[in-house]
Order: sequence, then C-alpha cells, then structure tokens
Amino acid sequence: MKEIVKESGAPKGAIYYYFPDGKEGITAEAVLFTGRGVAERIRIHLAEKSDLAEAVQSFVEMIAHFVESSGFRSGGPLTIVASETATTSEKLNLICREAYTMVREAFQAKLLESGFSEERSASLAWMMTSATEGGIILSRTYHSGDPLRAVAKELASLIRSCER
Amino acid sequence: MKEIVKESGAPKGAIYYYFPDGKEGITAEAVLFTGRGVAERIRIHLAEKSDLAEAVQSFVEMIAHFVESSGFRSGGPLTIVASETATTSEKLNLICREAYTMVREAFQAKLLESGFSEERSASLAWMMTSATEGGIILSRTYHSGDPLRAVAKELASLIRSCER
Repeated sequence: MKEIVKESGAPKGAIYYYFPDGKEGITAEAVLFTGRGVAERIRIHLAEKSDLAEAVQSFVEMIAHFVESSGFRSGGPLTIVASETATTSEKLNLICREAYTMVREAFQAKLLESGFSEERSASLAWMMTSATEGGIILSRTYHSGDPLRAVAKELASLIRSCER
Repeated sequence: MKEIVKESGAPKGAIYYYFPDGKEGITAEAVLFTGRGVAERIRIHLAEKSDLAEAVQSFVEMIAHFVESSGFRSGGPLTIVASETATTSEKLNLICREAYTMVREAFQAKLLESGFSEERSASLAWMMTSATEGGIILSRTYHSGDPLRAVAKELASLIRSCER
C-alpha cells in the first residue's frame, strides 16, 4: 500500500478514501481493469482480419512478442491472483471469474459471428483462453516466445479443421 | 519452515541438514518431484489406450475430476512457483523449466511414437501442456471441471484433425 501511495503522488488518505477495502479492493479493481482491457484488445484484433484462424494466430503471436519485450516479466496478469484466491477469497474469486468471462466472451462472440454453433463456440473459447493463459506461463518460464507461438499455430490449425 | 518441521515430526535441525538452502531448496525438490510424478502419470495413462486422441481426452478429464475432488484447492502445482520465479530466482526458474520439460516430453514421446513428425510433435506437446495448465487455472477459478473438459475435447479434436 505504501508503495502505491508513493508511486501515485496522492496524499496518504486518498487510497483509503477510494479503496475502503484496502488491498482487496485495489486488487479487485486491477483485475477488472485487466479483464476489460484484454477483452477489448481481442475484439479489436479479431475484427481487423477476415480469416478467423489467421486472426487468432496473429493475436497470440502478438502476446508472445509482448511477453518477450517485457523481458519475460509481464504477461498473464490474472494467473497468480486467480490461482491464489480460487478458494481463499470469495470476493476476489468472483472478480477473477468476471474478468476471465470478459476475455472468453470476446473470443466466443467472434466464433459465433464466424458461423460456429453455440456449443462449439463455447468449447473453443474455453480452449483459446486456457491455451493462451498456459502458453504465457510457459513462455515466461522458458524465457522464449516459442511456447506461445506453438499455441498460436495449433489454435489456428484447430479452427481450420472445424466444421461449421 | 516451522510448519513443515511440525508436520514432519522430525527434529528441527534435520530440515537444514537435508535442505541447506532452506526454502529455495525445499521448493526446488517439490517442483522436481511434481514434474516427475505428472510425467509418469502421463506416460502410464497414454500407454494404456491405443487411440491417442481418446487417451489425451481421458487424461485431461481425469485432471478435471481430480481438481473437482479437491474442492478446487489442488491442481497446477507448478503454476504459481513458475510464474513468481520466472525472472526473480534463476535457480527456481531453471528447476521449473526442468519440471515442465519432463511433462512436455512425456506428451511428445507419445506423439512421436504415434507417427507425428518431430516438428509437429514438439508443437502439439507445447499446446497440450499449455492448454492443460491454463484449463486447470480456469477450472479452479470457476469451481467447475467444465473448462478442463472443454480443453480435453478440443485437444482430442485437434489430434484427430492432424495429418501424420
């Protein structure tokens, strides 16, 4: 909390005024901010390209590039909060679900629009969210964008193979 | 450290005798133990069934069941350590890579044996490791095995669609 106050330059009391729950309230806001931002980037990126498989591949490759550019410090901003609070904080657990739902629904909306059935869109959207999330962990661990680029390629292959 | 000593029933000095590095040494041993155990379960499970897509699907469904049975407390034992130490502890980062490599190679060996090319086996093995890892996070977050079961189904679909 001290570091956030210092970084913000705001008076010390302000943080407790805006976040009466303290750390938990700040984390909740950061998680929702992240979910909204990622979902928005997915929507924009997938709207730009007409070929869905290509669009998904280049989106995940963009994440690989982002993780590389950060020196493998950044990526997967929800992973640790979601894992640590899954059964320890009901409030943060529900907030993490909300954030992942925004991400998943951004994929799902595009899949539906591209002609996939309700059921298949839902299933593929879970797969895209899971594989990207896991690929980020592996890319950060191996200090290499390769795991994410393999995920990008395989997601494109999966989409191309699907009957609509 | 105190809790581990208490749980083990061993004299207090023993933990520093066996783990002179303290916490880091214990974490490293736990990570490698986990990697070896998961890789072994993959090998055994995938050897039991003749259809690879079916074998992978039922393996990931088994993880879904395990995560459910734990009340969503367990699953993804490498996730947090790997994410937190990716750029903060060189020793634990290298150990996490070693553990993930054991898991990935267990998938990869079976893919090669099933007739996939070197390149495709490597790519699919990254995908399987990533999607399962991410699926565990989502299943724990949503308190539901469904994300992992969707991953299981989509991985089977991907394997079936591949030319060998």
